[in-house]
Amino acid sequence: MSLALPAAPADLEPFFAPTGVALIGASATPGKLGYGVLQNLVGRGSRAPVYPVHPTHTAILGLPCYAEVAAVPDPVDLAVILIPAPAVPEALAACGRRGIRAAIVLSGGFAESGPEGAARQEALVATARRFGIRLLGPNCVGVLAAHTGFNATFIGRMPPRGAIALISQSGAVGGALIDWACGQGVGLSYFISLGNRADVSEAELLAYLAHDRRTAVIALYLEGLDEGRRFLEVARAVGRRKPIVILKAGTTEAGARAVASHTASLAGTDAVYRAALRQAGLLQADTTADLFGIAQGLAYQPPPTGPRVAILTNAGGPGAIAADAVARRGLTVAPPSPEAAARLRAALGPLPQLANPFDLLGAASTHEYETAARLLLAESEYDALLAVLVPNTANDPVGVADGLARAAAAPPAAQRKPVFVCYMGDVSLRAGRRRLHRRRLPAYAFPEDAATALAAAHAWRCPLPPPAAAAVPAWTAAVAQGLKTLGDRGTLGEADLYPLLQSAGFPVAAWATATSAAEAVAQAERLGFPVVLKVVAPGLLHKSDVGGVLTGLTDATAVAAGFEALLTRLAAARPDCQPSGVLVQKMAPPPLTEVILGLNRDPVFGPVLLFGGGGLFVEAYGDRSLRLAPIGEADARAMMAETVVGRLLAGARGRPRGDEEALVALLMRLSALAVAVPSLREFEFNPVFVYPAGQGLTIVDARAILSP
Amino acid sequence: MSLALPAAPADLEPFFAPTGVALIGASATPGKLGYGVLQNLVGRGSRAPVYPVHPTHTAILGLPCYAEVAAVPDPVDLAVILIPAPAVPEALAACGRRGIRAAIVLSGGFAESGPEGAARQEALVATARRFGIRLLGPNCVGVLAAHTGFNATFIGRMPPRGAIALISQSGAVGGALIDWACGQGVGLSYFISLGNRADVSEAELLAYLAHDRRTAVIALYLEGLDEGRRFLEVARAVGRRKPIVILKAGTTEAGARAVASHTASLAGTDAVYRAALRQAGLLQADTTADLFGIAQGLAYQPPPTGPRVAILTNAGGPGAIAADAVARRGLTVAPPSPEAAARLRAALGPLPQLANPFDLLGAASTHEYETAARLLLAESEYDALLAVLVPNTANDPVGVADGLARAAAAPPAAQRKPVFVCYMGDVSLRAGRRRLHRRRLPAYAFPEDAATALAAAHAWRCPLPPPAAAAVPAWTAAVAQGLKTLGDRGTLGEADLYPLLQSAGFPVAAWATATSAAEAVAQAERLGFPVVLKVVAPGLLHKSDVGGVLTGLTDATAVAAGFEALLTRLAAARPDCQPSGVLVQKMAPPPLTEVILGLNRDPVFGPVLLFGGGGLFVEAYGDRSLRLAPIGEADARAMMAETVVGRLLAGARGRPRGDEEALVALLMRLSALAVAVPSLREFEFNPVFVYPAGQGLTIVDARAILSP
Repeated sequence: MSLALPAAPADLEPFFAPTGVALIGASATPGKLGYGVLQNLVGRGSRAPVYPVHPTHTAILGLPCYAEVAAVPDPVDLAVILIPAPAVPEALAACGRRGIRAAIVLSGGFAESGPEGAARQEALVATARRFGIRLLGPNCVGVLAAHTGFNATFIGRMPPRGAIALISQSGAVGGALIDWACGQGVGLSYFISLGNRADVSEAELLAYLAHDRRTAVIALYLEGLDEGRRFLEVARAVGRRKPIVILKAGTTEAGARAVASHTASLAGTDAVYRAALRQAGLLQADTTADLFGIAQGLAYQPPPTGPRVAILTNAGGPGAIAADAVARRGLTVAPPSPEAAARLRAALGPLPQLANPFDLLGAASTHEYETAARLLLAESEYDALLAVLVPNTANDPVGVADGLARAAAAPPAAQRKPVFVCYMGDVSLRAGRRRLHRRRLPAYAFPEDAATALAAAHAWRCPLPPPAAAAVPAWTAAVAQGLKTLGDRGTLGEADLYPLLQSAGFPVAAWATATSAAEAVAQAERLGFPVVLKVVAPGLLHKSDVGGVLTGLTDATAVAAGFEALLTRLAAARPDCQPSGVLVQKMAPPPLTEVILGLNRDPVFGPVLLFGGGGLFVEAYGDRSLRLAPIGEADARAMMAETVVGRLLAGARGRPRGDEEALVALLMRLSALAVAVPSLREFEFNPVFVYPAGQGLTIVDARAILSP
Repeated sequence: MSLALPAAPADLEPFFAPTGVALIGASATPGKLGYGVLQNLVGRGSRAPVYPVHPTHTAILGLPCYAEVAAVPDPVDLAVILIPAPAVPEALAACGRRGIRAAIVLSGGFAESGPEGAARQEALVATARRFGIRLLGPNCVGVLAAHTGFNATFIGRMPPRGAIALISQSGAVGGALIDWACGQGVGLSYFISLGNRADVSEAELLAYLAHDRRTAVIALYLEGLDEGRRFLEVARAVGRRKPIVILKAGTTEAGARAVASHTASLAGTDAVYRAALRQAGLLQADTTADLFGIAQGLAYQPPPTGPRVAILTNAGGPGAIAADAVARRGLTVAPPSPEAAARLRAALGPLPQLANPFDLLGAASTHEYETAARLLLAESEYDALLAVLVPNTANDPVGVADGLARAAAAPPAAQRKPVFVCYMGDVSLRAGRRRLHRRRLPAYAFPEDAATALAAAHAWRCPLPPPAAAAVPAWTAAVAQGLKTLGDRGTLGEADLYPLLQSAGFPVAAWATATSAAEAVAQAERLGFPVVLKVVAPGLLHKSDVGGVLTGLTDATAVAAGFEALLTRLAAARPDCQPSGVLVQKMAPPPLTEVILGLNRDPVFGPVLLFGGGGLFVEAYGDRSLRLAPIGEADARAMMAETVVGRLLAGARGRPRGDEEALVALLMRLSALAVAVPSLREFEFNPVFVYPAGQGLTIVDARAILSP
């Protein structure tokens, strides 16, 4: 992954700030979409001239009409197309001939509507490529720019001007969020509806918005991704500079089915999506409301440089709710030092309760809010302020908004700390909330929403491990070669893999194979007792299901008897399975704990690494961490720290430390294999025995699946 | 616990529907609280006469004033008191002399303000008791009744009439929620602010509201409880008939600190609160917004009789978000059967996407919404309908509200299924949302909120295990007696407990004590090898910390050496600790798994039972379930089903079944001890070895703490 910010794609400029717009499919009939879009295009003082194209009308809404796009005068650099799908490709070609190099296709009837539509979409894209036209959609809701008033959508309302760019894979979700933003006073810079994403992609829009000075935060509603890795690369680079908040749909089976039938997006695995977006430093909203809640906070206020929150309130109950909400989201609510409490007491008098929450009591004045906010923001023991106000007849929500804004802006810019505000209630607080938005203070109706946004802002501020290089060490070539010689076997077991792993330096338990009881005894004596015997048979993946594993054999007699027993059991349980022999393995001493390491290939994001607790811990408790490969050492350590088993191996709860360095090395090796051997579709070491620090690991079972 | 619904406390009637109200502390100065409360009392057409009491004024707001309460004419049965705290007890006595038997004390300056205030509150309660006056508060915000317009609070706004009664331990939280309800159009029956709870309690209010025909749901903001068991008993009986939704503050350390400084409530342990409220069948809101969101759903619509949700939408993205939200909350979103799909297709034509979500497409008409809703509600394969609407120029949110209401009301009352509605957005949907409220359809801005409420309604419908009888079997007397003979030892270890447990029939491992190496050897030979040796020393709770346990000793030599080693180790690690001997225990065979069973006493709720996975599982993974004692067998089984270890013991993931019956019996025995032996403050079997079904358990360690 690259850290470099991609250049702004200049050819997307006409979508955001066109010099002139041709509307192909303008209608003179109020109520029709082609009329509504024309109204929107001309309605808000956007300075770009608008040219309705209509075969017969001479003027609509007072604008001269053009019979064909060829007749449209300069300047024109954007076409908005809203005509029946079959006519769209030819209309696009006409735009190309006219020299228009950007088109928003609002029309539906393309890939979303079946095979015929898909073919039509291919033709559309071919036309676009032929003329070098950038295409947004088809089947999208369009683009809207709040700062200039440019509105090439069906949506009649224009949200307040602001710093949040909203990109949506669902026009309806975008429309609903704009409706909500209009009601709440949340400001946007742009709204971009992606539709079928035939040409312009999420990644390109992110790159464009990264350079846009009006956009501070990007909110993205996502159903799926076509180029997962490319998206992550761009999003990571952009997201470190401007926060990207994502609401991902299709996170459950039911949701994934809905997404599949909606935009035919490949849903991918929710756990992999979550891990991949997080690995790229993107913020994930759990709910629709949080998408804007989080975006608002980061659009208005600097992120906190630490987790220590001061809560200022005018009532105890709401303060307690806020304290719970902040603490539950991983931030801290510590009481003030005696010195800080004394400074507050001197300034605020005897009445307020100066714990944290700091309770100014019901009738708190604007002056008290401002004074307390200034002092708390100046205290080195807090990193952020969450101000809560409950309406009553004595207070002035509009005035308090101004006071808090003054306090927030008081320190020099570099030392400013975030102020998040919960005006708790609704009808008495609307003017106050509008004032908060105007003063660039994020406003929430309930403490929980404010705390969620503050925690996300804090998470965004936390450093990411550097992107990992896709190193391909020399030893991987030997493994790749070895796997190739195993041919098209598909599924590989221990006996296949150990020779390769051992020669590549993986810590596998000492082993040998035997095809007779006598050979098994000889090998056991060579390896040293106690040993484990495992039956080997092509196509048999789960040996223990057929009783194919015998542990703790301590002498020759037991080994000889064991050999025969394994073959008998296999013949009984799986008569179709021809044994190729028995694996004799030196029994590893009891470990501190067992872990699992694995590699898988996600259809959207490619190779994914897994680290988790062995056996029950990963299965029943879900104790695992995922990362896209390749990873760096910092990622490997972070994976371990994300699991309970990893924290126990690091000495949590007074446990002896395990050999974390050896685990990091093994994860790095798995990562290298993931990159170097693309045919390795699944790979799993399960379990790996972990010994105390410095005493290493032993891989005691392994299996792999190769792609054909 | 009793299942009987408590009688309505008739003496609370004047708080909700007074015949006449004396306001002691009326003010003629606009802006003063005593003026605002008077305005509220007279302002909304409440029919009860209002008598301002004021030493000098002859009239305020056109009402004749009375110099003292003695002069107030009939009818009068409620006093509202808002004068400085020191004068309140005498004012209350005057009310008593006048024959008033109910008083709301709004004044602060009592228990919440320190020792002097606490003494004043005691005097106040004594006065109330002397005159038989019921007292709400002090330090409360009062009572408001939306249906009659009666408003004895500081709050100037009256919420719409509705079926939700809000009880709040924080006046400010109540005020904020009423402000929110006014803005959103959510209706209330009553608001009751509890203040310092010197007399009238939550439980009494629940009992009153249980019989109130205007109240269908009770929403409760809770910071703490004084009489936990009494509250649960009443709440359980009430809550089975009318849903009770609780928002509990003080669930984190920071929140508990805030609560303590706010209402001096004993916070108790969050985990115990959650378990206790759940055990009583009460619904718990995770956020402030959910408190009303959940209450609204149950106030308007019947609870679903099953988890199968049909999602109706006019757009794919919002449908996908809704499907995720519903599925994540444990309900199901299954596609329709071919027959159901065919019926819908016949009625709705070729365009809608008839999977689940059922997508009527953007321009869906009122008729289409109503038709689809009627059909889906009639299908036996769905238990509830979640209708989502995204605003656009083509649809009519007010009309759709009416259509959905008609569909919801179409079946005969007994067969009705709930319809929950998400109007996604804000500014375009306000009229529609108001109409939804008027038509008694719960309205949410985002699908996640609707899904949360629907899941809570479903949870409320699920049956509770019957309340357990506090049985005291005969064997408990022997244990109680045995513990008494151990005197004031406080902490008891295995060696103390095993004789008692064994004679009471608990499955403890065979054991003996020894005070010399020779005796240890003799005992081991009697018990049979292998054995475990454990050092015994009063005051030594964690034997393993001093290396005081030796396992797997297989012969006499090892036992003799072990005896000496244990004494040496103890002397080295804890020279202050005098050993009383060594415990020789027959080593139990390896179990299927290890579990922990425990008993603790919560300061709010009393005896609490714990079941969990042994060792790491309960500690690091938090795999445990809590219940207040006593429990019934159904509770014991439910505790096991709530844990991963319990589900594994029931055969999950192909594991062999453990002896669940023996575990149920052991939990029931622990429950009986909890009831029979109040001095048993803590009791823990950790670990208990669990063997396959029918093969029993072995308690291999135990400890107890007795109350002085």
